[in-house]
Amino acid sequence: MTNSIEQYLARWRKEVDRTLEENLPPAKTPPAIIHEAMRYAVLGAGKRVRPILAVAAAEACGANPEPLLVPFAALELIHTYSLVHDDLPALDDDNLRRGRKTTHVVFGEAIGILTGDALLTEAFSWLARSTNNSRAIREVAEAIDSKGMIGGQVDKTAKLITGSVVLGGLLANASDEKIAALRRYGESTGLAFQIVDDLLDQERTSEELGKTAGKDVAQGKLTYPALIGSGAARKRLEELLQEAVDNAAVIGGRVNYLAAIARYICERRS
Amino acid sequence: MTNSIEQYLARWRKEVDRTLEENLPPAKTPPAIIHEAMRYAVLGAGKRVRPILAVAAAEACGANPEPLLVPFAALELIHTYSLVHDDLPALDDDNLRRGRKTTHVVFGEAIGILTGDALLTEAFSWLARSTNNSRAIREVAEAIDSKGMIGGQVDKTAKLITGSVVLGGLLANASDEKIAALRRYGESTGLAFQIVDDLLDQERTSEELGKTAGKDVAQGKLTYPALIGSGAARKRLEELLQEAVDNAAVIGGRVNYLAAIARYICERRS
Repeated sequence: MTNSIEQYLARWRKEVDRTLEENLPPAKTPPAIIHEAMRYAVLGAGKRVRPILAVAAAEACGANPEPLLVPFAALELIHTYSLVHDDLPALDDDNLRRGRKTTHVVFGEAIGILTGDALLTEAFSWLARSTNNSRAIREVAEAIDSKGMIGGQVDKTAKLITGSVVLGGLLANASDEKIAALRRYGESTGLAFQIVDDLLDQERTSEELGKTAGKDVAQGKLTYPALIGSGAARKRLEELLQEAVDNAAVIGGRVNYLAAIARYICERRS
Repeated sequence: MTNSIEQYLARWRKEVDRTLEENLPPAKTPPAIIHEAMRYAVLGAGKRVRPILAVAAAEACGANPEPLLVPFAALELIHTYSLVHDDLPALDDDNLRRGRKTTHVVFGEAIGILTGDALLTEAFSWLARSTNNSRAIREVAEAIDSKGMIGGQVDKTAKLITGSVVLGGLLANASDEKIAALRRYGESTGLAFQIVDDLLDQERTSEELGKTAGKDVAQGKLTYPALIGSGAARKRLEELLQEAVDNAAVIGGRVNYLAAIARYICERRS
């Protein structure tokens, strides 16, 4: 590995951004208001963690991620749909996301609902048009169904992150053993990501995060720090990082940034 | 054809109902509230038009529809998701559907949004788990994306109906010529279905329809009767039926109920 993790993340974030920009429907194609809202919600200051995890998983399994960017970028559409719907007045009623106004605040509640629907549908369209691997499509659908992301309370984030990592392996035609290791890596890294989010929500300001801080406590949400305390949550975080690093080693590969990404996720400050 | 169209529709409606009942997550599996709401929204007095059109299309193309019931029933999940979201306060704000209270009225607005999301996701899960034909999954996704059902004003219904008919043909491995004829049949039948809906909305009571009547006019919606007048809409209906019948004949097949279904749709009273 000649690149630092920061360079790796920046490189692929740029590639994912380009893929999203090029493949989302143009803002002027009717229905313009929905396409404008889709682009507003997706294009912006996202970290693109899920697509980049899929890229790293595919690369660790020996595939060139470039031709897989469309199905991997579909993961960002799914993540964004979940944010747009969660931010609605009937749910979290949030008005700040990725450093700017939430979609329904800008476009109205009706367009907020339809935009989330459109992003979710678009994601499956991108997946189906870019792979013949229906097992991969099923993996993503099950990660985000009522038993997965939609119904998840504490482990909502971990479900889609695990699905993203496994998608990367499946589209790289990885062995069952590697897929199993990727799944364990995804579960550890996804839960770690969630715990860091929860800790940051307590410790940082809205300005630093680009989204409303302190709302978990305000809404009485079930979070790891709330359930087991901040100290125990930090200890759990260390164990999860070790599990992620161990599973990344099982996967092996000539270029494998999975351990570095897990570490980056655990140490991030926003 | 030894069965009347009524018998044919009743038989397959029962099969679709059984497939939905057996494949939806049990109401007691967590998150119970969402699974209860999914079942409430889907199971009930639906006509199951879209799955039955897929059945008839597959049968006309020579396939046994029985093993295809799971992907075909997914079309009913999609149709129901669109109803659940359209009925929300921020959209049509409707409280009557299929003869009973709408989902968000019973379960609250937040669960209404999440239930629609869960039904849409579940549909792609059913499609992906029951077919290796990613072209078929893509066909459905594109029928209901921002340029299809979500963005459609006048032709919203026609998009999913066309997608349903084409799905039936694709899963029956029909030739490109037959798929093209099915697409034309679906467009004609779908638009006819929409016009009949619009006319019924003007002419029948809420009790007769099991949903709020007269709301198109009340909301100033773009409908065919509103755009071109009831008389012209009826004339267009006859032309569309003829187109549907002609294309059903192009498809041929030993058992072909497509023309009979198109006629039934045009003559229905609720």
